[in-house]
Amino acid sequence: MSEFFDNVPFVKFEGVDSTNPFAFKHYDAKKVLLGKTMEEHLRMAACYWHNFCWQGSDVFGANTFERPWYKADSEMAAAKMKADAAFEFFTKLGISYYSFHDVDVSPEGKSIKEYISNFSAMVDVLQEKQETTGMKLLWGTANAFSNPRYMSGAASNPNPEIFAYAATQVFHAMNATHALKGQNYVLWGGREGYETLLNTDLKRERAQLGRFMQMVVEHKYKIGFTGTLLIEPKPAEPTKHQYDYDTATVYGFLKEFGLEKEIKVNIEANHATLAGHSFHHEIATACSLGLLGSVDANQGDAQLGWDTDQYPTSVEEYTLITYEILKAGGFQSGGYMFDTKLRRQSTNLEDLFHGHIGAMDTLALSLERAVKMIEGEALSKYVDQRYAKWNDELGTGILAGKQSLASLAAHVTDNDLNPQPVSGQQEMLENIVNGYIYR
Amino acid sequence: MSEFFDNVPFVKFEGVDSTNPFAFKHYDAKKVLLGKTMEEHLRMAACYWHNFCWQGSDVFGANTFERPWYKADSEMAAAKMKADAAFEFFTKLGISYYSFHDVDVSPEGKSIKEYISNFSAMVDVLQEKQETTGMKLLWGTANAFSNPRYMSGAASNPNPEIFAYAATQVFHAMNATHALKGQNYVLWGGREGYETLLNTDLKRERAQLGRFMQMVVEHKYKIGFTGTLLIEPKPAEPTKHQYDYDTATVYGFLKEFGLEKEIKVNIEANHATLAGHSFHHEIATACSLGLLGSVDANQGDAQLGWDTDQYPTSVEEYTLITYEILKAGGFQSGGYMFDTKLRRQSTNLEDLFHGHIGAMDTLALSLERAVKMIEGEALSKYVDQRYAKWNDELGTGILAGKQSLASLAAHVTDNDLNPQPVSGQQEMLENIVNGYIYR
Amino acid sequence: MSEFFDNVPFVKFEGVDSTNPFAFKHYDAKKVLLGKTMEEHLRMAACYWHNFCWQGSDVFGANTFERPWYKADSEMAAAKMKADAAFEFFTKLGISYYSFHDVDVSPEGKSIKEYISNFSAMVDVLQEKQETTGMKLLWGTANAFSNPRYMSGAASNPNPEIFAYAATQVFHAMNATHALKGQNYVLWGGREGYETLLNTDLKRERAQLGRFMQMVVEHKYKIGFTGTLLIEPKPAEPTKHQYDYDTATVYGFLKEFGLEKEIKVNIEANHATLAGHSFHHEIATACSLGLLGSVDANQGDAQLGWDTDQYPTSVEEYTLITYEILKAGGFQSGGYMFDTKLRRQSTNLEDLFHGHIGAMDTLALSLERAVKMIEGEALSKYVDQRYAKWNDELGTGILAGKQSLASLAAHVTDNDLNPQPVSGQQEMLENIVNGYIYR
Amino acid sequence: MSEFFDNVPFVKFEGVDSTNPFAFKHYDAKKVLLGKTMEEHLRMAACYWHNFCWQGSDVFGANTFERPWYKADSEMAAAKMKADAAFEFFTKLGISYYSFHDVDVSPEGKSIKEYISNFSAMVDVLQEKQETTGMKLLWGTANAFSNPRYMSGAASNPNPEIFAYAATQVFHAMNATHALKGQNYVLWGGREGYETLLNTDLKRERAQLGRFMQMVVEHKYKIGFTGTLLIEPKPAEPTKHQYDYDTATVYGFLKEFGLEKEIKVNIEANHATLAGHSFHHEIATACSLGLLGSVDANQGDAQLGWDTDQYPTSVEEYTLITYEILKAGGFQSGGYMFDTKLRRQSTNLEDLFHGHIGAMDTLALSLERAVKMIEGEALSKYVDQRYAKWNDELGTGILAGKQSLASLAAHVTDNDLNPQPVSGQQEMLENIVNGYIYR
Ligand SMILES: [Co+2]
Ligand SMILES: [Co+2]
Ligand SMILES: [Co+2]
Ligand SMILES: [Co+2]
Ligand SMILES: [Co+2]
Ligand SMILES: [Co+2]
Ligand SMILES: [Co+2]
Ligand SMILES: [Co+2]
Repeated sequence: MSEFFDNVPFVKFEGVDSTNPFAFKHYDAKKVLLGKTMEEHLRMAACYWHNFCWQGSDVFGANTFERPWYKADSEMAAAKMKADAAFEFFTKLGISYYSFHDVDVSPEGKSIKEYISNFSAMVDVLQEKQETTGMKLLWGTANAFSNPRYMSGAASNPNPEIFAYAATQVFHAMNATHALKGQNYVLWGGREGYETLLNTDLKRERAQLGRFMQMVVEHKYKIGFTGTLLIEPKPAEPTKHQYDYDTATVYGFLKEFGLEKEIKVNIEANHATLAGHSFHHEIATACSLGLLGSVDANQGDAQLGWDTDQYPTSVEEYTLITYEILKAGGFQSGGYMFDTKLRRQSTNLEDLFHGHIGAMDTLALSLERAVKMIEGEALSKYVDQRYAKWNDELGTGILAGKQSLASLAAHVTDNDLNPQPVSGQQEMLENIVNGYIYR
Repeated sequence: MSEFFDNVPFVKFEGVDSTNPFAFKHYDAKKVLLGKTMEEHLRMAACYWHNFCWQGSDVFGANTFERPWYKADSEMAAAKMKADAAFEFFTKLGISYYSFHDVDVSPEGKSIKEYISNFSAMVDVLQEKQETTGMKLLWGTANAFSNPRYMSGAASNPNPEIFAYAATQVFHAMNATHALKGQNYVLWGGREGYETLLNTDLKRERAQLGRFMQMVVEHKYKIGFTGTLLIEPKPAEPTKHQYDYDTATVYGFLKEFGLEKEIKVNIEANHATLAGHSFHHEIATACSLGLLGSVDANQGDAQLGWDTDQYPTSVEEYTLITYEILKAGGFQSGGYMFDTKLRRQSTNLEDLFHGHIGAMDTLALSLERAVKMIEGEALSKYVDQRYAKWNDELGTGILAGKQSLASLAAHVTDNDLNPQPVSGQQEMLENIVNGYIYR
Repeated sequence: MSEFFDNVPFVKFEGVDSTNPFAFKHYDAKKVLLGKTMEEHLRMAACYWHNFCWQGSDVFGANTFERPWYKADSEMAAAKMKADAAFEFFTKLGISYYSFHDVDVSPEGKSIKEYISNFSAMVDVLQEKQETTGMKLLWGTANAFSNPRYMSGAASNPNPEIFAYAATQVFHAMNATHALKGQNYVLWGGREGYETLLNTDLKRERAQLGRFMQMVVEHKYKIGFTGTLLIEPKPAEPTKHQYDYDTATVYGFLKEFGLEKEIKVNIEANHATLAGHSFHHEIATACSLGLLGSVDANQGDAQLGWDTDQYPTSVEEYTLITYEILKAGGFQSGGYMFDTKLRRQSTNLEDLFHGHIGAMDTLALSLERAVKMIEGEALSKYVDQRYAKWNDELGTGILAGKQSLASLAAHVTDNDLNPQPVSGQQEMLENIVNGYIYR
Repeated sequence: MSEFFDNVPFVKFEGVDSTNPFAFKHYDAKKVLLGKTMEEHLRMAACYWHNFCWQGSDVFGANTFERPWYKADSEMAAAKMKADAAFEFFTKLGISYYSFHDVDVSPEGKSIKEYISNFSAMVDVLQEKQETTGMKLLWGTANAFSNPRYMSGAASNPNPEIFAYAATQVFHAMNATHALKGQNYVLWGGREGYETLLNTDLKRERAQLGRFMQMVVEHKYKIGFTGTLLIEPKPAEPTKHQYDYDTATVYGFLKEFGLEKEIKVNIEANHATLAGHSFHHEIATACSLGLLGSVDANQGDAQLGWDTDQYPTSVEEYTLITYEILKAGGFQSGGYMFDTKLRRQSTNLEDLFHGHIGAMDTLALSLERAVKMIEGEALSKYVDQRYAKWNDELGTGILAGKQSLASLAAHVTDNDLNPQPVSGQQEMLENIVNGYIYR
C-alpha cells in the first residue's frame, strides 16, 4: 500500500531524548494514566480536508502543493487515490481516528443523484479501509458552505429549496457517519449568518435554523445513531457574522429550540480566539454548561484576524485545556481532532508528518501535566476553599431560594455587616500551574 | 438657581443654518414624526456619573477637571451641590430624562446604615428637583463594582455576605427608582465575571447570578414597580471576562433561569463593539429576540480596546440603529441614554454642553433619516421579497414541522432540484441607505 | 462595443433627487470647486483585478460569479475579451482612470518568454483602448505574490533567482506603465514579509528589499518615467507580517535606503485599519511626512480581521480624508483608486455598477463637504491658535536649537513657571465637522 | 530593617523539586551559562511604581491595596518609608536592579522648586540605600504624563512652557540617574500623541519631539552620562495614538532627527502586542536594526485591549525572546525589567513576592532553554542554509549594486529561468523549538 509516503517510516514513541524527527517524544499510546491509556484519553483524529483536499492556495495566491493524488483519470479515481493516501498517512502516523466532510471523500457530481451515488460508493471504500487498518471515524459532517448555492446560507438561506438541498446532504452524511460507526456528527454553520443586516431577517433565519436542528435530532433517533450531535461555534469567516458565534450563543439557541440536551459543542481553539475569548474560556464555559462534546485542536495566530488553523504547539495552553476536560470527566464520544493545516509554504509531503507529530506530542505532554494537576489537587483545593462560605447557612439559603432582597437587606443592616475582600492570589496560582508544567 | 453654568444660555432649536454653538441644529423637541414628537421618540437622558462625578483621571493621569461642586464642607453638602449643578445642567440643556447610580447621588458613608440614611435624604432632594424642573428619571441603578468589597464580584462573589451586601444596595436602589417614578431599573455586572479561570468556579457563580436576578424580579413585583428590568451587556473591563458578555449570552442566561420574559437588555454602543459586534448587530439581535429595552447611546474608538464612552457623532450609524428600533415599534420604557464622557482634555464646563448638543443633534437627525427609511419602504420591501419563497408550500411546511430530513431528501432527489443562488445586492442596498441619509 | 453590459445605460449626473439607481446623485464631473473640476480633484480610478479577474471565491467557497469574459478559446482571446468588458464598463461608468497588475491584463504563460510576449501584445491592446475611449492609466503594477514561486517573497525571497524573476516582471510592468502614460507605478509587497521568525533573517531580507527599491528608482530615471513611485503599506495578509506595515514603517525603510525623496505611499483605507490605525491617521501621517502619493479608496469591516475591500460609503470618513488631502495641496499624480470588490453574494453584473456609483457619489459628496471645511477655516484657525505660543520667543528658540535642557530648567525654575493646561475642545470640534457634513 | 515583609523569608534557589512558594525553582543567580552567570545574563530589575506607588484602583474601582507605606505624617516621610519598603523587598527577593520615575520616589511638591528639593533629598536616600544593599539602578526616568499639565503632551504640548517644564524634569531625572550610576535612561512618551486629529498638527509636534530628543542626547554628553538612552514604544493608552507606536516607527523618527546611533529602544512585551505585533517580532526587529536596548518583561492578556502588565509566565514565549537577545550578543546596558503589576484582587503583601518569583523563574528557565538552542545550532544552521544562494555570484552581485532591473531581466530571459519554491518547514522548526523547551 505504501506508495505516497515512501520515505517516511511508521512513527513510533522513542522518548524525549530521541532526535528522530519522525518519532514521538511524548506520545506513548498505550501508557496508562488515571486508569486509561493516552490513546483513550486523547482520542486524537486527523482530518481529511486540510491534509488531502486543500492544495495550498490563499486569498492572494495560487496552489503551492503538488500532491500525486490530485491527479487521476476521473473524479472517482482521484477520490480513491486520495483515500489510499489518507489511510496510508493515518496508519503511518499511528493516529486512531479521522474525520471528513461528504465532499472531501466523494466528488459532488453534477446533480444530487450523482452526489448520492458517488458518496455511496466512497462510503464502501472507507468502510473497507477502516476494516483493513483499524482506523475509526471520530465524526462525519456535510459541507454545506462551499458550493455557490450556499453562498447565502444553507438552513438559513432565503430560498427553502436550498434549505432542502442542505437537508439532503445532511441526511446522507448522517447516514454515512452512522454506517461507518462514527462517534459523533458535526454541524458547522460556516454560511449560517449574514453578510449585511440590510438584507437579512434575523428572526426568520433563526427559526429556519432551529427547525433544521430539530430535524437533525429527529433523524438521529430515527436511524438509531448513538453518537453525539455537535455544533461547532465560530464567530465569523467566511461570513461577516455567524449565528453559532461562540458557546454561550449556541447555548441560548439550543435552549430556545429545546435542544440543550440533544446537541453539544465542538470547540475549536482558533474559533474561540476569533470570538474574543481564550480557548480556555470556551472549554470551561462548555464544561460548566454540560455542553462539551469534542475539540478541534489547533492554534491561531494572536496577531491575525482569520482562522489560521495551525498545529497546536503550546503545552502551556493545552495543559489547562486538558485539565478542564479531565475535571469534567474526560472525553465521552468526542476527542482531539486536528483541524489543522500546513502553512502554505510547507510544501513537502513530510511536512504533514512534522505537523501532526508535533501536535500529538503537544497533547500527550499536556495530558501528562494535566494528570499531575488533577492528582496534586493544589488548584481544586484552593478553589473549594475560596467558595467555602457558600456551604454555610447564608449561602445555601440564598441558593435554595429562601432569601429575598428584603431579607438580605435586613440581615446586612441589622448585623451592620461590612464584609472584606480577600486576595484572589492569581500570581501564586499561576506559579503552581507552571510548577506542574515545568518539571 | 443658575450659578454653575452662568455663561451658557438655555439651549434652543435654531435650525441647520444657526452658527450658535449652544443651539440645536436638528433637535426640535416638539416636531412630530410618525405621530410622535422627537422628544417622545428619542426619550434622551443625561447621566449623573460621567458628567458630575468623574473628575478627569485616567489610568496614567490625575484628575484634570476642577468643578465647583467637588468641594463642599461635608459629603452631604457636596452631594446637594452636585444635584444643584446636575439639574441646572439638565434644564439648560433641555433634555427630558436623567439616570444615576446610588452612589453617584449620595455618599456611601462608613457603614450600611449611613449609606441608607444618606441615600434616603438624597432621594428626597431628587424628588423635589424632579418636581421643580419636570425632569424624569429614565433609570436608576446600584453601583456594586467600585467599592473594594466588590473586587471579586457582587452576586458572583465567593463570599455570600458580599452577595448580601449587593442585594442590600439593589434593594434600596430599586426602591428609590420606584419612588422617583423611574421608567426602568438597570443592572450592569461590571465585576460579575472573572479575572482568572484558575480561581473561578463558573457553574457556581452562574447559579449565584441566576438567583440574584430572580430575587430582583421578585422584588419588582413585591413593590409594584412597573418599569422594565434591564441587564447591560459588556464583554470585559473592568474584569477580564464578564458574564453578561453580549445580548446573545444574556439571552441564554435568561432562558436558563426562566427570566426571558422579565428582563430586557440595555445595549451600549461601545460595549457592542468591544464584544466584537457592530452596534447595529447588537440592536438587531435584541429586537429579533424581543429583548430590546433601552440604549446607552455613545460611541467607541475603533482603534482602542477599552470603553471610551464618547459622544455619538455618527448619523450614518445612528440612522440604522434608529431604523431598527422604529421597525421594532420604538422605545417603550427605554430611551437613548448618554453614557458618555468628555475627553479628559476637554476641561471647560462648556464642553459638557458641546458634547451633549452634538449627541442630541446626531440622534435627532438620525431619527429624521430613519423615519424616511420607514416611510420609503425600499428596504423592507426588498427584504420581504428576498424571503418570499418561504411563504410557499415548501417553506411553510418546513417551519410547521411537516418535513423531515428524509422527506426533504426525497423531494430534492425525486425532482432533481438544483436551486440557484441570487444576488444579495448589498451594494445597491447601501446606496439606498445613503440616499436616505444624504439628502 | 456594448455587449457585456447591455442593460445598463451610460451613468450620468442626475442630482440628489434622482431615483435612478444608475445615475450619480453627487458626482458631477465638470462641476468646479476651488478652481478645479470634481474630476480633477478626485482623479478616480477603477481596478482591473477585483472587477474582471476575481471570480467570487473565498477561503471556504468556490467561485460564484459567472462572467462571459472568463471563457474563451484561448488565454489570449480571454484577455482580449476581458479588455473589451473592462473598457466598456469604465466608459459606461464615466470614470477617468483605471489600474492593473501585469497578470490581470495578460496571461502569465508557461515561461518568462511567453509572459513577455503576451504582455507586449496586451499593452498594444490597452494602448488602443485608451486612445479610443480616452481612459487614462492611474497606475500599473506587477503581481509578484500570486504565483507559487513567490510563496516566500519576491525581493525578500531566500533565493536570488526569484528576486531576479520579480525584477524581470517589474522591469516589464514599469516599461508598460511608461508606454501607457501611467501616472504612477505601485509596489505592493504582499509576500514581502515572514510567516515565521524561526526561518527568517530580518536584516538580510531588509537589505534585499532596500536594494530592490533602489533598482526600481534607477530604472525609473533610466527610462524617463515621470510618474511617481509608490509603496502600498499593509500590515499582514497574505503573510503573517509584511515589511511595509504602515506609513511610519515605510518611512523608516525609505530613510534607511536613501529613498525618502523618491518613493511615496499609496494608502489603502482597509490596510490602515488592519494596521490598527484610523484611515485618517494614515493619511494625516503621510501628509505630515510629505509622503502622500495616492489612495486606494475602499472600506473595511470594523469587526473582521481581513481585507474586505468594500466600496466606500462613509461620507463622514471620506470628508475628513479629503479635507486632509486638500490641505496638503490635493492629489498630484495620485488619485482615488477603487481597490474594491463586490461581496461574494453580489453576483449580478449590475452590482459592479451599484458598487462604483455609490463609491463615486460618496467621494464626490465628501469633496463638497471638505471644500466647505477649507473655505470655512473654522478648524484651521482653531489649530493655529492652539499652537500660537510656539511662535513666541520661547517656542521659536527651542525649535531653532537655542535652548538646552539646562537652559530650560533654569528658565522654569528662575521664573517659578507653573503652566496650566487648556481644553482641547474635541467635542466642539466634532460638532463643527458635523455642521459641515450635515447641511 | 525588616518591618514590612516580616513573614516572607529571603528568597533562595531551591531547585525544581522545592514546594516552598517563596523559593526559586529555576533562578540560580550564580549559575554559569555560556560564560556568564544567570544574574549577568538576565540583569533583572523590579520597578518602583507598580509595586510601591499604585494602590490597586482601576477605571471602575477604588484602591484595594492598603500598604503601610502609603500613610505617614508628611509626604517626605511617606517617600522615605516607601524607600525602606522597596529596598527591603528588593533585597529579600534577591533581585539585582531596580528602576524608578522621579515622582515615584519623591513628592512632586507644589512648585518646581519643591520638586527639585524633594528629589534631591530622595536621591541621597536612594544613594545610601544602594550602598547599603548593593542594589543597582537599571534605569531612571521622568514622569511627564500624570500631572494634569501634561494632559496634551509634554514635548509635543501646544504650549512651549509645558515643553520647558518637561525638560526641567528630564534634566533633573537624568542628573539623578547619572548620580545613582543608572545603566540607562528611559523616555516613555505616554502623552506624546494625540487624542483627536481635529486639533493636532502632526508635523509641528514631531518637530518638537525631535528637538526634545536631541537636547536629551546633548545633555547626556554634557554631564558625561555613559548609560544608554532608551525610548519605550507604545501604540496608544493613555492617548488615542502615541508617536512612539512601535520599534519601526521609532526607527523612522530617530533617522529623521539623526539620532539612530544615540537612542535605542526599551521594548515592553505588552506594548508590542497592543501594537498588533508579537513580542518576538518587536525584539527581532529591534535586533535587526541594531536598536535593542532593554526589555520591560511582562505579559498582556490576549483578549484585552489595554496594558495589563502581568507577570511573565510563559517559558514558551520568553525562550524565543531570550534566544533572539543571545544571538544579538546579549544585553549590554539593558536588562529584563519587570514592568508588572499585581492583579487588583491580589491584595496580600506576599502576592508581590509570588508575582516576582514566578517571573524570575520564568526568565531563568527561558535562559536555560535558549542557551541550549544557541548551543544546539539547529535553528541557525537551518536559516543559514535557507539563504545560502545569496552567497553565490548572483546574490552577492545584487546586494553589491552590480545589477539593475534590466540586467536581471536579461539574465532571467536569456537563461529561461524558472526558479522553484522550497518548503519553509515551519512545522519542523516549531518541533525543534519544543524539543529544546520540553526536556
Ligand atoms: Co478553523
Ligand atoms: Co474546526
Ligand atoms: Co453603559
Ligand atoms: Co461604556
Ligand atoms: Co485591500
Ligand atoms: Co490596495
Ligand atoms: Co505596560
Ligand atoms: Co513599560
